[in-house]
Amino acid sequence: MAILVQKFGGTSVADAARIRRAAERSINAVKAGYQVVVVASARGQQTDELVRDAMELNPNPPKREMDQLLSTGEQQTVSLFAMALEAMGYKAISFTGFQVGMLTDSVHTKARIKSIDAHRIHKQLKEGKIVIVAGFQGIDENENITTLGRGGSDTTAVAIAAVLKAEVCDIYTDVDGIYTTDPRIYKNAVKMKEVSYDEILELASLGAGVMHSRSIEFGKNYNVKIHVRSSMNDVEGTIITKEVEQMEGIAVSGATIQKDMAKISLVGVENKPGNAAKIFHQLAEAKVIINDIMQTEGSADKANLAFTIEASDLRAAREAVESIKNEVPYDSLFIREDIAEVSAVGVGMRSHYGIAEKMFSALAKEKVNIDSITTSEIRISCIIDKTQAEKALTAVCDAFELDKPEKKRGKK
Amino acid sequence: MAILVQKFGGTSVADAARIRRAAERSINAVKAGYQVVVVASARGQQTDELVRDAMELNPNPPKREMDQLLSTGEQQTVSLFAMALEAMGYKAISFTGFQVGMLTDSVHTKARIKSIDAHRIHKQLKEGKIVIVAGFQGIDENENITTLGRGGSDTTAVAIAAVLKAEVCDIYTDVDGIYTTDPRIYKNAVKMKEVSYDEILELASLGAGVMHSRSIEFGKNYNVKIHVRSSMNDVEGTIITKEVEQMEGIAVSGATIQKDMAKISLVGVENKPGNAAKIFHQLAEAKVIINDIMQTEGSADKANLAFTIEASDLRAAREAVESIKNEVPYDSLFIREDIAEVSAVGVGMRSHYGIAEKMFSALAKEKVNIDSITTSEIRISCIIDKTQAEKALTAVCDAFELDKPEKKRGKK
Repeated sequence: MAILVQKFGGTSVADAARIRRAAERSINAVKAGYQVVVVASARGQQTDELVRDAMELNPNPPKREMDQLLSTGEQQTVSLFAMALEAMGYKAISFTGFQVGMLTDSVHTKARIKSIDAHRIHKQLKEGKIVIVAGFQGIDENENITTLGRGGSDTTAVAIAAVLKAEVCDIYTDVDGIYTTDPRIYKNAVKMKEVSYDEILELASLGAGVMHSRSIEFGKNYNVKIHVRSSMNDVEGTIITKEVEQMEGIAVSGATIQKDMAKISLVGVENKPGNAAKIFHQLAEAKVIINDIMQTEGSADKANLAFTIEASDLRAAREAVESIKNEVPYDSLFIREDIAEVSAVGVGMRSHYGIAEKMFSALAKEKVNIDSITTSEIRISCIIDKTQAEKALTAVCDAFELDKPEKKRGKK
Repeated sequence: MAILVQKFGGTSVADAARIRRAAERSINAVKAGYQVVVVASARGQQTDELVRDAMELNPNPPKREMDQLLSTGEQQTVSLFAMALEAMGYKAISFTGFQVGMLTDSVHTKARIKSIDAHRIHKQLKEGKIVIVAGFQGIDENENITTLGRGGSDTTAVAIAAVLKAEVCDIYTDVDGIYTTDPRIYKNAVKMKEVSYDEILELASLGAGVMHSRSIEFGKNYNVKIHVRSSMNDVEGTIITKEVEQMEGIAVSGATIQKDMAKISLVGVENKPGNAAKIFHQLAEAKVIINDIMQTEGSADKANLAFTIEASDLRAAREAVESIKNEVPYDSLFIREDIAEVSAVGVGMRSHYGIAEKMFSALAKEKVNIDSITTSEIRISCIIDKTQAEKALTAVCDAFELDKPEKKRGKK
């Protein structure tokens, strides 16, 4: 009997009516012949309220106690979900993280899953029950409650789908799938039918994030088919899956624009082994997350080193770079806060020629100046002027026909 | 190093300010040289809110899921309590029922404790931490969360005090101790300094209940010294302890009045072995709780059987008794709903003469008619007319000098 995992986020279980509606989806899946496992988040604003309660007592609460506190939100949802199913005539049982043997490491507030006791879930499924598992939480080897951090319930769902070898892991959200680009900027964006783990990882980290990248990575590692879909209707959403041949027919699957960025350029850094390492070590110490790194040769023995970061990290990054100037001398420091990054992503890039040229031409035609360029195997990104962000994204989307369903796009 | 257990009820931890005040008590105990274990209930109205949430989804929720839901209330309190202590500069750790190995049977919503893993608490105490344990909850051998029912947090506190061999178990409540009788009726009631487990069991079941009888029974079985005191001040409250010699000097320790009672009398029940058993079996099936039973011989082969119950159980009791009339015939059925029960309790009764006579005289002097009488080894109860309840209690209290501290009472 095939197993289906359904994950419902906080807004999908915010009140009794919504819990009932979510429970109906589980019942429909049972009627369709599935064994069903539900993973649920805390109801609506519950987590925020608990955080507020904690802050009132301790502005810097111990992380272990924070996990102990926050895990109650999901525990409440799953027991209420089970009650709803029982009231609707279906057998159900709820499990907390510890009851389902969700063993994690001991890094409170962002623990990583080590193993799950699938036996316990299988046993209940065989008894004909719908099993509801609290998302976001686990337990370490000393029975301390842990939580998985941002997007934790998605990770729980994908991890459970992996150990149960579920046919698919449905992620119910408030959007009806993943679009080729942000529809708020590019009105003609279309929903992607299928997208590969690698593509969505590139798109997510660039700001189109519907799911947290950790859960996608988990899905990739264990080959879990993930279905991102709306909790408001029954329309098919977007399937995130392993790369299949037909994906390679499409040069570019999606495009993103990322604003709120800053770029720091160090001009005339002595080109000595270990200098770059020292700079980025200092930035890591300052907890600055680096987006992209670009290095070019300036002269025979000097290089120009630049990197992009989130604008909110600018102050910390600047201090880190200035603090190391004695150790790693450079001629001058330039900062740009007025930039944006437009990116095109697609596994098809690997086997298609002329993608970069097409993107640069599209931008040139719209008179968008390119400050710098970075690429990965399946991504091309251009740093541009922030005021041209919308125009740039539209040009790229038009060029790669991201307003048409995959099948209808002209192929080079 | 002596161990102190402190139990805080829902009103004592209802908000941040009260949690801080409770935490200060724990800190004061640490400063006084104790190793401190705190047992806490759910905050204020949290449990009621969760029950309401459940009822909205399922008017008859599965008990396992109800326990799963309600146990979150205490879990929230203990983590917040630990955060408060840390903010005040003291090391603390919170434990849920399962983390502290609070093993119970599997009777959801009214489980009984089987064992507690004292090792885990001792370890943390030795590390200099204040340990905060979630009251009311446990776990069965299959890792299902259970709850202990009414007064459950008191039971948790007393049980933990028992396994840790604590010097005393402080129960913080909204009253400053246990009084010789209800001060709302008898204004001159005085606080008892000490009272035995057996006396408080008789007084509690008769309606003076500050603590649930189950926790008192636990204290009696494991000889835990219980200190019932106010969470609003530092005044000594009432110590519940094993019977000591000096208690026997006092004939009557306390008196109670119980209203909202009903009495059912079966006149002319055939006096055949097994008849009484059949009647009370039927009443138990109907979940009627029997207060007192009185049987007298009516004629050679017939008896009069009467029992008192809570008024709210009257309808169920009446139906049960009438349904069995074919099997256990009786001549007639009388019901009194206009009764009250006045009781005098004291371990000293065992060694004092004339207590009953003194009580009956006091009632007679006030023209209170006695409908019927029941006694235990340490209690005398009279069923009287409800309209005379206050007068009767006052007469009994005056007769046994319950307006004076124990030491100042004249002894017979």
